[in-house]
Amino acid sequence: MSGTEIKASVLHGANDLQVEVRNLPAPAADEVQVAVQATGLCGSDLHYFRHFRNGPIEVREPLTLGHESAGVVVAVGSSASSTLKVGDRVALEVGLPCESCELCREGRYNICRGMNFRSSAKAYPHSQGTLQERINHPARWCHKLPDTLTLEHGAIVEPLSVAMHAQKRSGLKPGSTVLVLGAGAVGLLCAAASKVAGAKHVVIADIQEDRVKFATDNAFADAGLTVPIPTVRPETVEDKLAYAQRVAESLKSLKVKGGDAVIGEAAVTFECTGVESCMQTAIYATQPGGKILIIGMGMSVQTLPIMAASVKEVDLVGVFRYANMYSEAIDLLASGNPLLPDIRKIVTHRFNGLDQIPGAFDTAARVKDDKGDLVIKVMVDMA
Amino acid sequence: MSGTEIKASVLHGANDLQVEVRNLPAPAADEVQVAVQATGLCGSDLHYFRHFRNGPIEVREPLTLGHESAGVVVAVGSSASSTLKVGDRVALEVGLPCESCELCREGRYNICRGMNFRSSAKAYPHSQGTLQERINHPARWCHKLPDTLTLEHGAIVEPLSVAMHAQKRSGLKPGSTVLVLGAGAVGLLCAAASKVAGAKHVVIADIQEDRVKFATDNAFADAGLTVPIPTVRPETVEDKLAYAQRVAESLKSLKVKGGDAVIGEAAVTFECTGVESCMQTAIYATQPGGKILIIGMGMSVQTLPIMAASVKEVDLVGVFRYANMYSEAIDLLASGNPLLPDIRKIVTHRFNGLDQIPGAFDTAARVKDDKGDLVIKVMVDMA
Amino acid sequence: MSGTEIKASVLHGANDLQVEVRNLPAPAADEVQVAVQATGLCGSDLHYFRHFRNGPIEVREPLTLGHESAGVVVAVGSSASSTLKVGDRVALEVGLPCESCELCREGRYNICRGMNFRSSAKAYPHSQGTLQERINHPARWCHKLPDTLTLEHGAIVEPLSVAMHAQKRSGLKPGSTVLVLGAGAVGLLCAAASKVAGAKHVVIADIQEDRVKFATDNAFADAGLTVPIPTVRPETVEDKLAYAQRVAESLKSLKVKGGDAVIGEAAVTFECTGVESCMQTAIYATQPGGKILIIGMGMSVQTLPIMAASVKEVDLVGVFRYANMYSEAIDLLASGNPLLPDIRKIVTHRFNGLDQIPGAFDTAARVKDDKGDLVIKVMVDMA
Amino acid sequence: MSGTEIKASVLHGANDLQVEVRNLPAPAADEVQVAVQATGLCGSDLHYFRHFRNGPIEVREPLTLGHESAGVVVAVGSSASSTLKVGDRVALEVGLPCESCELCREGRYNICRGMNFRSSAKAYPHSQGTLQERINHPARWCHKLPDTLTLEHGAIVEPLSVAMHAQKRSGLKPGSTVLVLGAGAVGLLCAAASKVAGAKHVVIADIQEDRVKFATDNAFADAGLTVPIPTVRPETVEDKLAYAQRVAESLKSLKVKGGDAVIGEAAVTFECTGVESCMQTAIYATQPGGKILIIGMGMSVQTLPIMAASVKEVDLVGVFRYANMYSEAIDLLASGNPLLPDIRKIVTHRFNGLDQIPGAFDTAARVKDDKGDLVIKVMVDMA
Repeated sequence: MSGTEIKASVLHGANDLQVEVRNLPAPAADEVQVAVQATGLCGSDLHYFRHFRNGPIEVREPLTLGHESAGVVVAVGSSASSTLKVGDRVALEVGLPCESCELCREGRYNICRGMNFRSSAKAYPHSQGTLQERINHPARWCHKLPDTLTLEHGAIVEPLSVAMHAQKRSGLKPGSTVLVLGAGAVGLLCAAASKVAGAKHVVIADIQEDRVKFATDNAFADAGLTVPIPTVRPETVEDKLAYAQRVAESLKSLKVKGGDAVIGEAAVTFECTGVESCMQTAIYATQPGGKILIIGMGMSVQTLPIMAASVKEVDLVGVFRYANMYSEAIDLLASGNPLLPDIRKIVTHRFNGLDQIPGAFDTAARVKDDKGDLVIKVMVDMA
Repeated sequence: MSGTEIKASVLHGANDLQVEVRNLPAPAADEVQVAVQATGLCGSDLHYFRHFRNGPIEVREPLTLGHESAGVVVAVGSSASSTLKVGDRVALEVGLPCESCELCREGRYNICRGMNFRSSAKAYPHSQGTLQERINHPARWCHKLPDTLTLEHGAIVEPLSVAMHAQKRSGLKPGSTVLVLGAGAVGLLCAAASKVAGAKHVVIADIQEDRVKFATDNAFADAGLTVPIPTVRPETVEDKLAYAQRVAESLKSLKVKGGDAVIGEAAVTFECTGVESCMQTAIYATQPGGKILIIGMGMSVQTLPIMAASVKEVDLVGVFRYANMYSEAIDLLASGNPLLPDIRKIVTHRFNGLDQIPGAFDTAARVKDDKGDLVIKVMVDMA
Repeated sequence: MSGTEIKASVLHGANDLQVEVRNLPAPAADEVQVAVQATGLCGSDLHYFRHFRNGPIEVREPLTLGHESAGVVVAVGSSASSTLKVGDRVALEVGLPCESCELCREGRYNICRGMNFRSSAKAYPHSQGTLQERINHPARWCHKLPDTLTLEHGAIVEPLSVAMHAQKRSGLKPGSTVLVLGAGAVGLLCAAASKVAGAKHVVIADIQEDRVKFATDNAFADAGLTVPIPTVRPETVEDKLAYAQRVAESLKSLKVKGGDAVIGEAAVTFECTGVESCMQTAIYATQPGGKILIIGMGMSVQTLPIMAASVKEVDLVGVFRYANMYSEAIDLLASGNPLLPDIRKIVTHRFNGLDQIPGAFDTAARVKDDKGDLVIKVMVDMA
Repeated sequence: MSGTEIKASVLHGANDLQVEVRNLPAPAADEVQVAVQATGLCGSDLHYFRHFRNGPIEVREPLTLGHESAGVVVAVGSSASSTLKVGDRVALEVGLPCESCELCREGRYNICRGMNFRSSAKAYPHSQGTLQERINHPARWCHKLPDTLTLEHGAIVEPLSVAMHAQKRSGLKPGSTVLVLGAGAVGLLCAAASKVAGAKHVVIADIQEDRVKFATDNAFADAGLTVPIPTVRPETVEDKLAYAQRVAESLKSLKVKGGDAVIGEAAVTFECTGVESCMQTAIYATQPGGKILIIGMGMSVQTLPIMAASVKEVDLVGVFRYANMYSEAIDLLASGNPLLPDIRKIVTHRFNGLDQIPGAFDTAARVKDDKGDLVIKVMVDMA
């Protein structure tokens, strides 16, 4: 079969995105062909766009970015028709694990060594991302959306799955106090997932006052702290730790809404910034027996008061993507759970069409746009 | 009541141990009076002895050291007679938690904020240690030893409980590979506890060749690596991490006994040194989804390749003492489990009587004694 | 000390309740004296009242009933003043475990063999219940109520703790389907706790149409089934199981609200009736890998299709009272969680004063009162 | 490709086994072709052989039995060569789950609704068993045996996986007491797996004195009880339960080896008989908070003192086959773990060649053979 001509956004170097035509074959037996319609831009996409690399991972061939995506099924492989049909709207789970190693068999496919994740340059040849008109994808990794959800909801399922996976790893008990460091998209979703999981208080912290206000105004968090940036940058380890301790004390001293009681230590802290001083703060702000979820990808090497964590048995728990979370996330979005804030509000900017993607990245790189409005999640619409 | 005159070893300053006479009242209703007979010296005792402080904790009044202890019941409080009688031999669990906070009620009393632990200067007034002829102690924290165990076994129950608690927190699955960093008393006991828990391979590493040899010769570990100290000390973070990666590679490349297969990554790593480069090595040597147990008390602040841990969901799990482990440890020692090495071998040096304690500490501070023999655990006998 | 004269409701035989005067001493050092004000009547109270026994447990001395209670502190023992003061409103956790056995230390004090539970005749002498003007109770088992909660809320904390303990044992994952068999007080609270825990669908079943309607009208459950009582009572085991299978099929075929999709099998089933046919239904209605929580106290011996459970690894999980749940339950009630229905609605009848208790029991024994109104929870007010 | 002519043992009706010639195609890309060499006969095979059905499952077309098997790779599919090569000796995991449902993704593929298990008539067309010269099987479900293990070890991996899966579901803590009801092959392997998992005492019970003696003589169990069959068969439920209670008391009163202490209640009970009175005994013999693993397939409907279990929170945990256990079982067998008895001793009878299979089944149906020797596991050798 000759396939279909489609257009794709392809990264050829730092800041060098080109729209190209590709030939897409018919879907294989177990695949469907999906017309991608909504793709949220993620921090890793942005890193690739700006540096043609993501931390230590270099791009080695032209790469299509994008992995927070939803679309519409336009063709169905011969053996995929039992689960999906043309016209179905699906959230795309874009990471394909080996499905045969021990980790896969135990349900931890997110850390499968053979993971092939679209838009990442880790595996070679690279698995191309979703910022193209259509892709072929195994039907079992396409999660059907109910009629009540939009395709944008479908794209948000990806970062929401990260938050819910972190939530699951946290073992949060209902009635606990939760601290979220970083009020970007994933931090906001961690806060929302904590409310759904029965957290008593959800406190969010960020250095951007607007983000904190966004979080509390829109019911993602119960209380917030705008973390002051020190006027004199701490240089020594002692000064850095003293600063982190002060921030932790400020967090613990926050008042519970409508009362004089203070929040106190967190049972679970979601670290969503990747910044060293935040991890230090997390260690000081978490209660004995608590957990810190390391979600933010940031400084690869950090100087930490590790003994302060271990003597109170505060565990540092790694979080990498998600496993078996898409259907739970879709269920949650469709549930009408009143504890869940309106998560579509995190989409602050929308761009339309493959041509607009460079501009979308420019916006995603900023804290605020030209009008002074907050940038949280930038969505590329390709309908 | 007039009480009994007893002698106690009391620390008045750095290296200043004095034998003093104290008046010990009759045991309270729920207490027994125990003639302490065997006490192992621990690293924290040694720190107090040499510095009159232990890390950030300063001694504020004369302090009797010692907390790895067993003895014989010599008097029984009115309400304690249902469980213990004069002549019973008991292992002393010397930490008294509040028994009413949430952590206590959940069985995590080791991290109770109100913990009162003998020989520690953390609480004030300090809870006096066991290096005295007799103590009064709540009967419910005195664990009766079966006839087949010696009092020295009873003293070793304390560090063995640390190892078993770490083991429990590790969630080690039978058939897994275990790495132990540090072949001191606790490291050796972690290795032993791993064998009992069904580990497939137990690998131990230390910078002292004698300790590694001791571990493998005496069946604590299956394989060992004497970690080379670099001839040129790495100064930059990059060099330090490169060194840790090389050590991790050496560990993974060790051959399984009697074959050409290599050990590979560890499912669980017990870090028993408290040294930064060891923690770094632990992160590189542990497999995706694995756990690192932070047991060694050492450098309070460490520079770590934390993202290398989090992206493979390797969790850093704190371990502080133990909870509900004494009876399990006694059961294990009494079980005759053939996987358990002869743990009394870790006692390499014995001193007799309160007068000998300064000499005992001098030996405990050394890696080898005057004769060139390895020092692992120093035991003070007071029978 | 001379103590205080108080009045108590005392059961001397089946249906023989008398109001008597007792002398209550001052509270011991660790106790407070509480003026009991609200006590809900429980099925076990009712059994004692009507039969002077509860299943196999015979009453051996005059017994005051009542254990779902809240009141006001009127005196404080010498060592209890750090946590409570006169005037504090408290929910009473009336079971006193031994606090020293292995189960207590692991946080499973509800199944402590030495449990001494007020209003139960299991231990001898019996521990007297709360249907008396005042009791002395250890301060650590009195849970302070926040100002926003009523004393009736405080009394409901007891059955709510049962539901939350069951919830915890269920390991319910958010997004799951829950089935509750029996729409009495505990069933309704299990349904409510499941909603809070993130259940996707909560289905409730009862043979009383009014109860099912109550549950769905008041947002305890999303869907309900009035289970038909067969016109010809099944006599053989085969017929009984066929009936249970039909009921299970009816449950699975219920429509999800506002759609044509069916509910399907339950991930977790809370069996709150103690009736054999319900347990059979539970086995057929629960999905592979699911759990059945056995909460209802009823037929001690039941004929069950046990292999149908085991081959799909559906576990039958026992639930007995609660452990460490009071503070979580109070937190939940105070949280304003919008998923929680108004649980005070379960109190359908209120009686005032010790003299009214026989009448209260008469009402509690009925499904509907003289006016035809549903009876769920009967509360005795003694303010 | 024309394929290979092979011989197969095929069941055409009750007791009607015929040797037939089949044409076996070349292995598919992801398959290997295995010359089956050792197959243990299982109770389900025996039921099919004798009744042409297994409980409610009827055979609907000629069926080859056998699923406890190991063999040698004789051909390799095009994409399977990375893991296996001709000459490799493998244990066959014969159940093929769908690998895409939620249960499969969570690592619980044993209860996948789409499971296709060789030698079972549950799915149609039936998945043919291993009592044939060769089969084609997906390479990822063929587990390579190390040189130190025999093919008979490889066949025993199957029932050992059942025991290890039960062990895993039990959450057995080291130092616990274990009770095994039924000293057949699976019961013996549960006992062995419990020793490896650190059980303090392993007690086994059976009505056959020889089996109990076999278990204790060969170090599968520490103590045993030959359960007396009552001279007058109990008819009423009360009498049956009284009998079960007496057996439970006898078990709890057994003496610990070399002492006067009694065994007491079990923390974990493995019920391997499927007999109602044994399940009743299990409930009475298990301690508060303990677990009963339901392993024996037997009476589908049982009358149980279920409240006696639930009020002490003894959970009835279903066990169906195994998931992700083959490699752990092979590792254990290869480990030389001294706690593991010589499990090949359970193979009491061996038959050679397809023609001998009817005789093998005749022996497997008996408790003792003609010579009066105990029958435990019958192995069919087809090398």
